[in-house]
Amino acid sequence: MLIVMRATAREEDIAAVCARIESLGYRPHVMPGATRTAIGITGNPGAIDPVEFEDLPGVAEAIRVSKPYKLVSREVKSDDTRVRIGRAEIGGPELVVIAGPCAVESREQAFEAARAVKRAGAHLFRGGAYKPRTSPYAFQGMGVEGLKILAEIREETGMGIVTEAVDEASLDAVERYADCIQIGARNMQNFSLLKRAGRARIPVLLKRGMSATLEEFLMAAEYILSEWNYQVVMCERGVRTFADHTRNTLDLSVVPFVKALSHLPIIVDPSHGTGKRDKVIPLARAAVAVGADGLIVEVHPHPDRAMSDGPQSLTPAGFEQMMAEISQIAELVRSRSIAV
Amino acid sequence: MLIVMRATAREEDIAAVCARIESLGYRPHVMPGATRTAIGITGNPGAIDPVEFEDLPGVAEAIRVSKPYKLVSREVKSDDTRVRIGRAEIGGPELVVIAGPCAVESREQAFEAARAVKRAGAHLFRGGAYKPRTSPYAFQGMGVEGLKILAEIREETGMGIVTEAVDEASLDAVERYADCIQIGARNMQNFSLLKRAGRARIPVLLKRGMSATLEEFLMAAEYILSEWNYQVVMCERGVRTFADHTRNTLDLSVVPFVKALSHLPIIVDPSHGTGKRDKVIPLARAAVAVGADGLIVEVHPHPDRAMSDGPQSLTPAGFEQMMAEISQIAELVRSRSIAV
Amino acid sequence: MLIVMRATAREEDIAAVCARIESLGYRPHVMPGATRTAIGITGNPGAIDPVEFEDLPGVAEAIRVSKPYKLVSREVKSDDTRVRIGRAEIGGPELVVIAGPCAVESREQAFEAARAVKRAGAHLFRGGAYKPRTSPYAFQGMGVEGLKILAEIREETGMGIVTEAVDEASLDAVERYADCIQIGARNMQNFSLLKRAGRARIPVLLKRGMSATLEEFLMAAEYILSEWNYQVVMCERGVRTFADHTRNTLDLSVVPFVKALSHLPIIVDPSHGTGKRDKVIPLARAAVAVGADGLIVEVHPHPDRAMSDGPQSLTPAGFEQMMAEISQIAELVRSRSIAV
Amino acid sequence: MLIVMRATAREEDIAAVCARIESLGYRPHVMPGATRTAIGITGNPGAIDPVEFEDLPGVAEAIRVSKPYKLVSREVKSDDTRVRIGRAEIGGPELVVIAGPCAVESREQAFEAARAVKRAGAHLFRGGAYKPRTSPYAFQGMGVEGLKILAEIREETGMGIVTEAVDEASLDAVERYADCIQIGARNMQNFSLLKRAGRARIPVLLKRGMSATLEEFLMAAEYILSEWNYQVVMCERGVRTFADHTRNTLDLSVVPFVKALSHLPIIVDPSHGTGKRDKVIPLARAAVAVGADGLIVEVHPHPDRAMSDGPQSLTPAGFEQMMAEISQIAELVRSRSIAV
Repeated sequence: MLIVMRATAREEDIAAVCARIESLGYRPHVMPGATRTAIGITGNPGAIDPVEFEDLPGVAEAIRVSKPYKLVSREVKSDDTRVRIGRAEIGGPELVVIAGPCAVESREQAFEAARAVKRAGAHLFRGGAYKPRTSPYAFQGMGVEGLKILAEIREETGMGIVTEAVDEASLDAVERYADCIQIGARNMQNFSLLKRAGRARIPVLLKRGMSATLEEFLMAAEYILSEWNYQVVMCERGVRTFADHTRNTLDLSVVPFVKALSHLPIIVDPSHGTGKRDKVIPLARAAVAVGADGLIVEVHPHPDRAMSDGPQSLTPAGFEQMMAEISQIAELVRSRSIAV
Repeated sequence: MLIVMRATAREEDIAAVCARIESLGYRPHVMPGATRTAIGITGNPGAIDPVEFEDLPGVAEAIRVSKPYKLVSREVKSDDTRVRIGRAEIGGPELVVIAGPCAVESREQAFEAARAVKRAGAHLFRGGAYKPRTSPYAFQGMGVEGLKILAEIREETGMGIVTEAVDEASLDAVERYADCIQIGARNMQNFSLLKRAGRARIPVLLKRGMSATLEEFLMAAEYILSEWNYQVVMCERGVRTFADHTRNTLDLSVVPFVKALSHLPIIVDPSHGTGKRDKVIPLARAAVAVGADGLIVEVHPHPDRAMSDGPQSLTPAGFEQMMAEISQIAELVRSRSIAV
Repeated sequence: MLIVMRATAREEDIAAVCARIESLGYRPHVMPGATRTAIGITGNPGAIDPVEFEDLPGVAEAIRVSKPYKLVSREVKSDDTRVRIGRAEIGGPELVVIAGPCAVESREQAFEAARAVKRAGAHLFRGGAYKPRTSPYAFQGMGVEGLKILAEIREETGMGIVTEAVDEASLDAVERYADCIQIGARNMQNFSLLKRAGRARIPVLLKRGMSATLEEFLMAAEYILSEWNYQVVMCERGVRTFADHTRNTLDLSVVPFVKALSHLPIIVDPSHGTGKRDKVIPLARAAVAVGADGLIVEVHPHPDRAMSDGPQSLTPAGFEQMMAEISQIAELVRSRSIAV
Repeated sequence: MLIVMRATAREEDIAAVCARIESLGYRPHVMPGATRTAIGITGNPGAIDPVEFEDLPGVAEAIRVSKPYKLVSREVKSDDTRVRIGRAEIGGPELVVIAGPCAVESREQAFEAARAVKRAGAHLFRGGAYKPRTSPYAFQGMGVEGLKILAEIREETGMGIVTEAVDEASLDAVERYADCIQIGARNMQNFSLLKRAGRARIPVLLKRGMSATLEEFLMAAEYILSEWNYQVVMCERGVRTFADHTRNTLDLSVVPFVKALSHLPIIVDPSHGTGKRDKVIPLARAAVAVGADGLIVEVHPHPDRAMSDGPQSLTPAGFEQMMAEISQIAELVRSRSIAV
């Protein structure tokens, strides 16, 4: 159920609708739009009768939402959500680039990477302090020490920090030190973690699971929004198929689908999407051309010495090249001349 | 690295090897076998020189393990692991059947299901108290109340309880009330949860992820063993493919592969593997014939009224039919006349 | 559209219905059943009015068929089709085993293989004279010379011959020398070849395409039946997925689905389905247990010297072992005690 | 084996090398390059000793080719192949757009489509006269009548004609009337048809099979080149995966891989790649940005009345919009400022 308020509705009208929703045992979700406010209802909306609301002051209409995802749906909020992370805004006119190494390996490595990507024009810095690794014997990240290094990097460079949380404890820490919580592909259906991220006070970057359908991807975001965190950025990073020439098969078609069905912004990870350094740039170009709101790219000062994902990490020179190539396409695609 | 002890090695020889391993900063894993004991070394074994151990009393040899999975490997432990849950033993000569509803919905429903499956010959009872659901608005399980009902069912029927944990909090509760912790497909690479399960004092049933390769499946089990819980049962439940006539594509070939590469037992879930009630029995027959050590099957007293997974749940009568059909095949396959 | 005749309908009633169908510009397909005859109509049946037929003598009813496949459907013919090849009958009570090398490589090799599989109880002999190979530089089969060797083998052993045709020319030759035309997975949607096979006077073994859905598989068979060859045996041989431990992922669930939706028999190829010799036997057991009407298995007298598919070919001893293991399961599954 | 000639080699030197190759029982393939000529050897090159050639006049070196594909490989021919079809050249600096309806349905429909796409800037016209359809009862194309209409369209518009052949008979006809033979995804491993296309005197457009790996795709092209037709254009059209929001999953990563491994040009089909009209344009932009040499797009004057593929066909207005959007990106990507 969705309550659409009139453009003239006052604060107290909205509050009154929320109170009515709560009194019926449901949860209100106030979604302010450019011209009018909508109020989503979750819990078990099927059972509510629209007439419960239609007589309240300021209510334009009460409509049933037809999709299993509600709060992420364009039906609920027609204008694009813009997610502010540090000084960057994802989902607005500017293409946002998040760059940095797979993992924070040391103060030196992280700062070297950060200065390089900053110089080349990155808006946000990425780097894992908690790494979900296939093997229990592989490097699992520096933990809080890594987060502290990331916070120092923000101090020096001004770039906001995007870093992964893998469980409740690491999410608590990430929330303390970083500007955006990344939920990795392997945790896209770790519903407890999603709910915890939904209670965080900073934005969430949600990566598509390796075999997630479009609907499952949107429903995972719905988990986060249902806990009142509406600052979610979707991320396509390749799916698992029979194709063996790339690490994953980058499914760029999901970008225009997410943008059509949802108000949330979506970015693309061409590093995991290909797994091969020399294919990152062409796929980054394609991602921008298809209409992605941003990119997240692995850059390592010395990929051959990387503790993880070396083969797919760009060098600083490669990253500079990428930035040059995508900026021209972004200008075309994100201007009025080409509709996204 | 793996230290194989002589058949004549004494307790104190084993203890001395473990002390040497720990003094070098690694973790020892004592794996007693039918005739001799092996000691796995984890942490970062590549760096250790075999000569560190070859002069210790009772040591037969120190060998490098060639696979990324170590503790789950047949190289480390050549004889089959048998996992005892309640009064049942999975991995031994008897085929073990775990049955029950997808979710515990009420005391009445759970008891009705339990009595029915017990009567038909089930060894263990399943039923979810914590349900990982695609939608945040769907029934998420009864929680601790559900676990208490399951514990009562064990009291009355004598069947051990297998039930899913979805995060640390629910795992704590499951460990308290149940006999085996199920890790679901969506959490197969939730490495924090796997590590927590590795510190549990009860066995773990590990379901294969929806797009997990054989190696990733074995590595997920390795996470649990690396924390000293060696009581792990693997479970094939279907993988995600293009095929649309079933909910998942049941990959029965993984059964003989797991049994060849690992000492751990493996069972099959034909309910999720097909998603269609009338196809559960033929696939259950096939699972037994391919050499699975057991089955986990959804049975609901009234599938049409089930709060989840109704279409794939057997009726009590269907379950009885299944038990009759598989028992004859199990007798053939698990006897000496047919090698598994 | 399907015309169901009364049990008392005479030959001339059937002929009259066919004449009416043809006069309307469509094709009649007479499908005799155990108790009554059905007449399928293809061409563009949607446009016909049932009343055109309901007044003809002997007509019980004229019904619209709801599935895109018509002639292969159980709606059109409710009792199982049995396909006779040589002295064997696929789809009847007996499990039929087709065995032999991937390719006929020489007279000696083929005869050695044939005698071995005959001795172990095979019913039909397989061996490729025309091989579809990924590389244009790989051995492409002996052609007509190979077919002549196969015909000699039939003379000596009495086993009917199943061999692949890859185009119209080879199909002409196969039809002349063999007892059953195999259409390979790569040609499952080579519709010209399917139509040509539909005009052959001998049965067709149709392998499922590497990424064919159940419906596409049935529609490929429909192409053959629509040209009046109703002697079709379906064959599951594994599909292409992300899983990398087997050459293909054997989708045994398709067996009960084909048997539920269609009257055609279905067999399983565990050799291509796994690609690994030591996994052929467990999967063969599973295929029989799931309800397959037969198996097609690669057996080579000296797999290490095979010109193709050596790694998945059973030795004669392995084949003997397989026959022993499956015969007991077949007895259980195909008897009255276990419904398929 | 590959014989690389000196830049100074004369015609008769090349002829002498070819004669030596044939005398040894193999096939020579003369591949003229920008600066020097290479001669590929197929048949069974592994057995030839390089010294057989190194003493012949004009021979620079004889090298073994390490990949299973030889003639399509960049090892054999380092500079890009350009394929001329009508007045267009695929693989050169200009992006080439092939457009038209899925099927030729009538003279009127085809001409209306042709005039519209010509007006908007298409270089080549597509339209099926022979349609491979999943159902034997679906419209299978107008056959030779359709080809004659296509030839008339070339007369009027000057656009070269690209149209599909599905078997030897239709390939004969297509070769007579059209400018380029399309081999569809379902026939990518119809090796007899590939060999026949290799003997055609006009270029071939080879679509990637629905579950073809990169290597299989290249090997299919190798079949065509091995019969001396070197005018092959590769085409990515989406592969089959679990993802259900698109008809196929467009794998754009294959474009830079084909261009790195092979000298052949590659284009993209965003119509089949998505199956949804409103997603064709964003994916077309992405295809150009990733480096494709061209596009093949379905355009129908009245998609709602199309006999096949209506939902994925652009309207003429949509096609105009697409041309406007891609031209700017093509200018960027295909100029020196962005390396492909």
